Amino acid sequence: MVKYQEADLNDIFAALADPTRRALLARLEQDEDALSVSELAEPFDVSLPAVMKHLKVLSGAGLIARQKTGRTVRIRLQPEKMAHAMEWLKRYERFWTDRLDRLAAFVENAAQNETPTHPAAPQDQEDQ
Amino acid sequence: MVKYQEADLNDIFAALADPTRRALLARLEQDEDALSVSELAEPFDVSLPAVMKHLKVLSGAGLIARQKTGRTVRIRLQPEKMAHAMEWLKRYERFWTDRLDRLAAFVENAAQNETPTHPAAPQDQEDQ
Repeated sequence: MVKYQEADLNDIFAALADPTRRALLARLEQDEDALSVSELAEPFDVSLPAVMKHLKVLSGAGLIARQKTGRTVRIRLQPEKMAHAMEWLKRYERFWTDRLDRLAAFVENAAQNETPTHPAAPQDQEDQ
Repeated sequence: MVKYQEADLNDIFAALADPTRRALLARLEQDEDALSVSELAEPFDVSLPAVMKHLKVLSGAGLIARQKTGRTVRIRLQPEKMAHAMEWLKRYERFWTDRLDRLAAFVENAAQNETPTHPAAPQDQEDQ
């Protein structure tokens, strides 16, 4: 089971590592309906065979699904696998939230110490 | 700026597409402190040069940082770039949450219709 998920993650992350493939997913995200391959390829400055190759990688990773209606193949986003990738990344989320918390605490602390217009401690020492 | 981020995402997702590299990150996630390269390599059934190659990819993607203390290089997790990858994935989150919402609504609806042992409406009509 874990092995299978590992292989899944390899494919998902590898599929996401290409800017054209990410752009294809972004286009599918904008359109609610499934798109035909030529509709999908239209805004890209890439040949149709190149687009089809990218779609094959995305479909191999399970990120898109093909629906055949008559002679046209329509493509739709299949986001469950992205949830899988996100789940993996979430494990590390505490690291950046911890850092943000520490930063917030530091700023808050600094602000409290700066409430008097002049720094309190050194002046006190001069006064004594 | 966007171009730069795109290149960043290419490197991040490509770095995450390998199971040994993900396992190295997971090991760094478990230990709060930075680890030496040999400590890090120890549990893996991979040669030290292979581990160093993987670390180079991870550091190239900005996912880990190297700290040199004297002669030892210590590695620590640098999670900000993972936040970047997660940010990209979050755009698609609504797709799977939408699906879960629809599923929840469907189940709730089905449960409401099944609350009485016999369908309510026809029985009410019989009582009248």
